Amino acid sequence: MPTRSTPSASIDRRDLDFLLYELLAVDALAERPRFADQGREVFDAVIDTARAIADEHFAPSRRRNDQEEPQVVDGRVQTQPDLQATWDAVAASGLIAATQDADRGGMQLPHVIASVAIAHLEAANVGSASYPMLTAGAANLIAAFGTDAQRALWLPPMLTGRFSGTMALTEPDAGSSLADLRTRATPVGDANDGTFRIEGTKIWISGGDHELTENIVHLVLARIAGAPEGTKGISLFIVPKKLVSPDGPIGGTNHVTLAGLIHKMGWRGTTSTLLNFGEQGPCLGYLVGAPHQGLAYMFQMMNDARIAVGRAAMAMGYSAYRYSLEYARTRRQGRLPGEKDPGKPPVPIIEHADVRRMLLQQKCAAEGSLALVLECALLMDEEETAPDAGARARAKLLLEVLTPIAKAWPSATCQEGISNAMQVLGGYGYAREYDVEQLYRDNRLNQIHEGTNAIQALDLLGRKVTQQQGAAYAALVARLDGTAAEAGASDVLGSMARALRVATGRMTEVTAHLVGVMRSDPARGLANASVYLDLVARTVLAWLWLRQAMVAERALAAGAGLGSDEAFYRGKLQAARFYFGFELTKNDADADLLLRNDPSAFEMRGEWF
Amino acid sequence: MPTRSTPSASIDRRDLDFLLYELLAVDALAERPRFADQGREVFDAVIDTARAIADEHFAPSRRRNDQEEPQVVDGRVQTQPDLQATWDAVAASGLIAATQDADRGGMQLPHVIASVAIAHLEAANVGSASYPMLTAGAANLIAAFGTDAQRALWLPPMLTGRFSGTMALTEPDAGSSLADLRTRATPVGDANDGTFRIEGTKIWISGGDHELTENIVHLVLARIAGAPEGTKGISLFIVPKKLVSPDGPIGGTNHVTLAGLIHKMGWRGTTSTLLNFGEQGPCLGYLVGAPHQGLAYMFQMMNDARIAVGRAAMAMGYSAYRYSLEYARTRRQGRLPGEKDPGKPPVPIIEHADVRRMLLQQKCAAEGSLALVLECALLMDEEETAPDAGARARAKLLLEVLTPIAKAWPSATCQEGISNAMQVLGGYGYAREYDVEQLYRDNRLNQIHEGTNAIQALDLLGRKVTQQQGAAYAALVARLDGTAAEAGASDVLGSMARALRVATGRMTEVTAHLVGVMRSDPARGLANASVYLDLVARTVLAWLWLRQAMVAERALAAGAGLGSDEAFYRGKLQAARFYFGFELTKNDADADLLLRNDPSAFEMRGEWF
Repeated sequence: MPTRSTPSASIDRRDLDFLLYELLAVDALAERPRFADQGREVFDAVIDTARAIADEHFAPSRRRNDQEEPQVVDGRVQTQPDLQATWDAVAASGLIAATQDADRGGMQLPHVIASVAIAHLEAANVGSASYPMLTAGAANLIAAFGTDAQRALWLPPMLTGRFSGTMALTEPDAGSSLADLRTRATPVGDANDGTFRIEGTKIWISGGDHELTENIVHLVLARIAGAPEGTKGISLFIVPKKLVSPDGPIGGTNHVTLAGLIHKMGWRGTTSTLLNFGEQGPCLGYLVGAPHQGLAYMFQMMNDARIAVGRAAMAMGYSAYRYSLEYARTRRQGRLPGEKDPGKPPVPIIEHADVRRMLLQQKCAAEGSLALVLECALLMDEEETAPDAGARARAKLLLEVLTPIAKAWPSATCQEGISNAMQVLGGYGYAREYDVEQLYRDNRLNQIHEGTNAIQALDLLGRKVTQQQGAAYAALVARLDGTAAEAGASDVLGSMARALRVATGRMTEVTAHLVGVMRSDPARGLANASVYLDLVARTVLAWLWLRQAMVAERALAAGAGLGSDEAFYRGKLQAARFYFGFELTKNDADADLLLRNDPSAFEMRGEWF
Repeated sequence: MPTRSTPSASIDRRDLDFLLYELLAVDALAERPRFADQGREVFDAVIDTARAIADEHFAPSRRRNDQEEPQVVDGRVQTQPDLQATWDAVAASGLIAATQDADRGGMQLPHVIASVAIAHLEAANVGSASYPMLTAGAANLIAAFGTDAQRALWLPPMLTGRFSGTMALTEPDAGSSLADLRTRATPVGDANDGTFRIEGTKIWISGGDHELTENIVHLVLARIAGAPEGTKGISLFIVPKKLVSPDGPIGGTNHVTLAGLIHKMGWRGTTSTLLNFGEQGPCLGYLVGAPHQGLAYMFQMMNDARIAVGRAAMAMGYSAYRYSLEYARTRRQGRLPGEKDPGKPPVPIIEHADVRRMLLQQKCAAEGSLALVLECALLMDEEETAPDAGARARAKLLLEVLTPIAKAWPSATCQEGISNAMQVLGGYGYAREYDVEQLYRDNRLNQIHEGTNAIQALDLLGRKVTQQQGAAYAALVARLDGTAAEAGASDVLGSMARALRVATGRMTEVTAHLVGVMRSDPARGLANASVYLDLVARTVLAWLWLRQAMVAERALAAGAGLGSDEAFYRGKLQAARFYFGFELTKNDADADLLLRNDPSAFEMRGEWF
């Protein structure tokens, strides 16, 4: 077996600088009060720190984390020993509290910078990166909706890494249908103090049990006795693994018991658990916010989590891309078509056009997904800190419509990318001695968790596109048209600008048609929602690629002295051309399918299979 | 963790009967002298036997085969203990010699029936099915090109399962480029007796070492000292693991030594080995056929092997399809769009249109791939046994052009299918407690081995389409046009017939354009060969679906008394509609791309990435 050709690959810093500072101009955030005293220097230092932690602690244990899966020994979950070092390093860095207010001990960073930092951990070792990610998400929820007392009790240990967190939504018999949750919450004593007894079973709880931290804080959805049926009767509770007294010390068990570990195809470093609440004794939960509002609260966290799924997919796709790129540059094999002399030395495989095609698909998937998740993260910052109320509202709208896309598209397109990385490596790509196959297994989960991609499609077409009389959709179209108009002035980019304008027009035609069908027959109108999501996502990515191409073209036009940047910018332009030629062109067939509302799947009957 | 919902799933017998007897009319083969005394009864008995072996021995050990990977213990390869039972069962059944002449102890079955039999083993447990498959392939090569003495010595123990076989082509530094093979063959004593000393290293040798059989017969490509460079200087050798005297008894080591096992993502039951020949002592090889003709011989086996790859992919895709179908029929979750009452019980998920979309994609992938590989297997029978010389020649031509498609398309489309199966199961699909994730890992290899799919594309466009002044391509078009004309008379199928005719016309336009480009600039003309293969494959599958739809429509038109067959035929018709609406429609964008010969990948430079 030849030795592995490259160390673990990560996000290209030149690309990151391009997106953050040349495309998105995130350094301008420092002008806002919340980010005063920050700026590119601070941002870069945070990114450098995350990269160093990723290189030192996360990347070296990625493979071991996969091989030595968590297991139950004497009733306790044993995780791969290196995992503790990754947790401790992140906790010490302050990144769990990256976006929290400074007066809570947070770094008060923009979401866009925090997101980049976490992405480096995910690119290096997603199985270890889950724990701080989930903890930050749970902490955000308590910060947003908890009482002062709850914040005081739970946030300090979570943000400093003494406690970790989870989100516990799914139940074995309900699956994706949260309306069918059956976990019960019964008031303890005087109901008004917000303490309940929790009973039920949750499945797929990532990080649901381990010994990395002194305690685990589960954020659990449950139904208070007498609550309405369906999604309107769900409440949110803080349910710790061990009880904690109001003054802080940790007490005995809260009867959250591990019923089993699930053995996944990938992402094995993160424990996936089946948990029983209150089966072996009383399990206390503390109501967060108002009763029956749990799903709305959880969805705030869920929206972040969905963008985080897209980011993790991007990170893994990016890692595979850079890994296979390095391989393609160094591995020699075969000769070009037309070369008849077998005495000539073999060429580096990057000289084969089909290898470049596979690398370009990966470049578009990884860099396009990075642009998308950064755009979304920046919209979160806009929504919270833009000086102008109109800008904040527009950001919120745009984020609503982009969230399902940011979850679904990177998870699918980067899986295709990782598959291409595997193909570039050939047999080596399929061998566990190389990194790619683990990325292929790890990333596949991203199409499933936090709402399957089909659920994202229903969310996009059935909810986001129609909400507020289509205001979110209109906000998206306004951005797309604006870019097409701006790029239309360029000789180089004129044809891409026209293609984006046409694609946007067809998207709007399709959207109007489907909204009309949904009005009379929701099931029929939503039947091909997955195809619709693909069509919208490709159009959004065309917008992001055209914006990148504009920046690259301007830089090239500015001319001399570019040095190695010239190759970088030419690569961006060529990737945009590839995207418009190989990817966006798939939209026509999908638009036709949606406009005729192809009934093949809708009318198929179960007994005909 | 809920229990697994279904046992291992296999090829649907009703579908198989439909394809074999209603579509392909393979029972007519019994009219030919080679298959006299055979007929549907014999064919069905063979299939039943294979299915019984698959159920009894192969399926139960699929998961164990994956978990307990082969390992080296005290220098010997230890395989999962159940593997021996699978080998012994197949050996006892005679299936290793399924297509061999009766006077060699073979069953003298048609390829199409043998292929169906093996497919059942592959659907149940591909890691175990490799060993008899590889052995049959190696035996076929010796039968076709060996001397009488070689046949007498090697075939009886191989066909009865005392010895197993491998094909040893690839070397670590050559990869897919067989022109760069460096394994040397030096004449021993008097060169004319065909005995050589073999020295070199081979990688990815499946079944390259194990203790299932008394001996392992490697068919090795090597270069005789002084041979021309490139592919024209490669010869084929029989290289046994242990020496065998002319009268049969097995002697000492032949110095084929295991340098290492490769650890694959899937397909783990089959040992994948790095082998050294002659490093630790003299290793003898016996020349097969003429010197320097090895690659031509090997390609005879390779063509069969490529169709076998497509068949294995079909088998795995089929298994995942039936597994997820059963799950979708029994798992209840959520309600249909428009249903506002959360008190209503959840519906079986097959009632969700997007689940049916994913099942239809799988049905098209699995059943379409089965139709394709059976068509190819029948063409092998036609080529060998058709009474008319013209028919034999046409079959050979058609098989040439279909082989790269039969390898590449099922391997890719069934991977998409298995991914959809995983998506139908949601989190359970990603859990190792269920069957689907193993199929996802196992089948991914099929896009890589026996020539990557990109190599199939180069073979199709660069060789098959142009050979004999386009005769093979013309043979394909004649079949497609014939079907379109036949179906065009039907009211129900008229639009599909027109779509096939249009697609065939565009394919021919694209082909002529690319052949023209290749004439002046081979590298440029072949740059998008992978897209070309997709376009041709989709057209071929449209042909196969239209043929199935015709049979189904006739059966439905014949009317009454169909019973449960009515649902089956309606399913075939609906799958054809889905295929034409969701899959074939992708061809337009690809045709445009190829007609403009999109240069994005071709012109991309390595340093721009």
